[in-house]
Amino acid sequence: MSFDYAAHVRPDLPPPSPRWAGFPRYNFIGGHNDADSIPADGLAAAAERVLRRDGRKLATYGMDSGPQGYRPLREFVAATLAARAHLPCSADEVLITSGSGQGLELVSALFLQPGDTLLVEASTYGGSLTRLRRRGANIVGVELDDEGMRIDSLASVLEGLRSKGIKPRYIYTIPTVQNPTGTTMGRERRLEMLRVAAAHDVPILEDDCYADLLWGAERPPAIRSLDRDERVIYVGSFSKSISPALRLGYVVAGWDVLSRLLALKTDGGTGALEQLVLAEYCPQAFDGHVAALTGTLRDKCATMLAALEQEFGAAAEFHAPNGGIFVWITLPEPVDTSKLAQIALAEGVAINAGPEWVAAPESGRRSFRLCFGNTSEQEIREGVARLAEICHREFGLPLTGANVLRAAD
Amino acid sequence: MSFDYAAHVRPDLPPPSPRWAGFPRYNFIGGHNDADSIPADGLAAAAERVLRRDGRKLATYGMDSGPQGYRPLREFVAATLAARAHLPCSADEVLITSGSGQGLELVSALFLQPGDTLLVEASTYGGSLTRLRRRGANIVGVELDDEGMRIDSLASVLEGLRSKGIKPRYIYTIPTVQNPTGTTMGRERRLEMLRVAAAHDVPILEDDCYADLLWGAERPPAIRSLDRDERVIYVGSFSKSISPALRLGYVVAGWDVLSRLLALKTDGGTGALEQLVLAEYCPQAFDGHVAALTGTLRDKCATMLAALEQEFGAAAEFHAPNGGIFVWITLPEPVDTSKLAQIALAEGVAINAGPEWVAAPESGRRSFRLCFGNTSEQEIREGVARLAEICHREFGLPLTGANVLRAAD
Repeated sequence: MSFDYAAHVRPDLPPPSPRWAGFPRYNFIGGHNDADSIPADGLAAAAERVLRRDGRKLATYGMDSGPQGYRPLREFVAATLAARAHLPCSADEVLITSGSGQGLELVSALFLQPGDTLLVEASTYGGSLTRLRRRGANIVGVELDDEGMRIDSLASVLEGLRSKGIKPRYIYTIPTVQNPTGTTMGRERRLEMLRVAAAHDVPILEDDCYADLLWGAERPPAIRSLDRDERVIYVGSFSKSISPALRLGYVVAGWDVLSRLLALKTDGGTGALEQLVLAEYCPQAFDGHVAALTGTLRDKCATMLAALEQEFGAAAEFHAPNGGIFVWITLPEPVDTSKLAQIALAEGVAINAGPEWVAAPESGRRSFRLCFGNTSEQEIREGVARLAEICHREFGLPLTGANVLRAAD
Repeated sequence: MSFDYAAHVRPDLPPPSPRWAGFPRYNFIGGHNDADSIPADGLAAAAERVLRRDGRKLATYGMDSGPQGYRPLREFVAATLAARAHLPCSADEVLITSGSGQGLELVSALFLQPGDTLLVEASTYGGSLTRLRRRGANIVGVELDDEGMRIDSLASVLEGLRSKGIKPRYIYTIPTVQNPTGTTMGRERRLEMLRVAAAHDVPILEDDCYADLLWGAERPPAIRSLDRDERVIYVGSFSKSISPALRLGYVVAGWDVLSRLLALKTDGGTGALEQLVLAEYCPQAFDGHVAALTGTLRDKCATMLAALEQEFGAAAEFHAPNGGIFVWITLPEPVDTSKLAQIALAEGVAINAGPEWVAAPESGRRSFRLCFGNTSEQEIREGVARLAEICHREFGLPLTGANVLRAAD
């Protein structure tokens, strides 16, 4: 008789995962990226070179660099942040993590006990929300506009909490190419955010992992670079700029923070090959690669926005993103995107339903996120058309599509 | 003024990490391996080949294989377990993890709530003990002999707990090249362990991550291979056989278990490069590489045992390991190995003190663990000699050393 695990495991586990059934035909979910843009040959050459030269370093945990990560990669991160994010820092302030997700997870482990409150943008990264909910956090949303988190809303939420005697543990923000809205916060608003956070004695977690994919706008200085009192913990990633399957991110913070994160990072270090290869590849090639990738993504984004205009017409509300791989769309009543996502998936179109990407699930009922990174331009056109058809069939809108009036049945 | 993190972080954090100060002169701690044995050229060639051929796969999380890990690597794991551990399984039963540590952590997250009891070998892997303590587990040790966990002790511990109404969540065992003792459990005892576990309705976590480094004995079948009722969750690793800095391990279990572990594995997948490169390298080269590595380690082990004989004489009690990279040594009263480790480290000799490697810390006071994987044979001889001198100076023993009688001062 087979052992009865259901009777023996923790009673409070999340639901078991379904079996993976392959990618859908039109894959608009997740943070997948453009396959043609993967610098496969450059990575291959870098891998070969660095392994022949330094492969012996694989014999020790930490590769002669200690638990903060491979020193040449930390040096590249420091150099690229100085050049691209106006954030000068030293390799000693950099902790390499297994994706920015691990960095976010370590920071939440640093601050949060069950029941603790934190502030997030009203719509924000679903992966963070899932993990924060599992930690038992009280997640409070702050309103967004076309420039990201609104400071008046931030101040008023903080005041409201203060009046109830609640001090949030930190403010989680994605200020540059916000996920999912694609908005970017300007320099002045960043300074205001720092002032409000200081007035309430609250630290900030700055998640900048899409910032390398900004286009059509100057990249503002990282909030951490404007911070005079070490209030900001900065998190970045190579997932969007190089490859999501490579699990490489980083945290930039003072030793006060890093020494505590290191004590929580009991993983034996982040993967060596990923670190060795990127440390070899990036110093010469990163900027050129990212420029080419960003151009490709900008074209795909334009294709997706045109497809949305054509297929959804005035029904679809969205901010044209100035970077990244996502569009965040809101449809009129009576659309329910959780239902739409489920039906569309069965017909080969995968979308992220809004409720998983917002602090207050009900507020995301009519919204959804589309990733244009992985699909081809043709797939974008076809997939959005198919989605509009399904949406019309299920919810009676959009009424116009492909320049043809749909029957309002 | 700098933000005061000490006043804002969780009150129950572990102590902050010290800054990394480089490796000690004689590095007998941790699971570091032999640098000359790293197959750097083979990995370089594999990396170049696989990235040029399949680099595009890096564009998606999971590389067309889903969250269980890169399918060709899972297929290799299944094949090598059938060939080497008498454990036939399918790629669908394999979950690739970021080191076996992540596998162990996921399994503990599956079963343990704070206060829950589990059984371990009386001396066992320190990394597991640390993580289990942080989880608030009640860790109960089972006695060992030269063949690993003693079944009479297991039965009596289980009876004792039953009489108190306590059912342990699982039995954690390292049956092949046990860490730290280097013992290996024979087939008969494995069957007995299964019978006792069945009688008490308790699952088993089999940590087999040193098993590839067995020498001088036939590798017994994995406990999971003898299991008829899916009671055993199996964990393995490439850390010892290829490189500890590569973070690649695996869990083998039924879907009942894997589907729940996947729901807990919210890391965006295990590192892609490590998986691609090993999947390319291993099918042709793994067995030959491991045979050569094991020969080297066997020689280093012999050198260490000889150095221990020469420098510590009759004072040092140890089991000659039949594989792996560790020796576990017990010295007479009044040695205190926590103190010895601290003093020796200041003089360039790093050892793992016993209390961190035992279920009941006081029982490890006179024991310590030496890793012979990373140091050269000359460093082994010098380091053990220096350790014996320090030990004599601090604790008055060993009295004989380097064939010269030490003054009993």
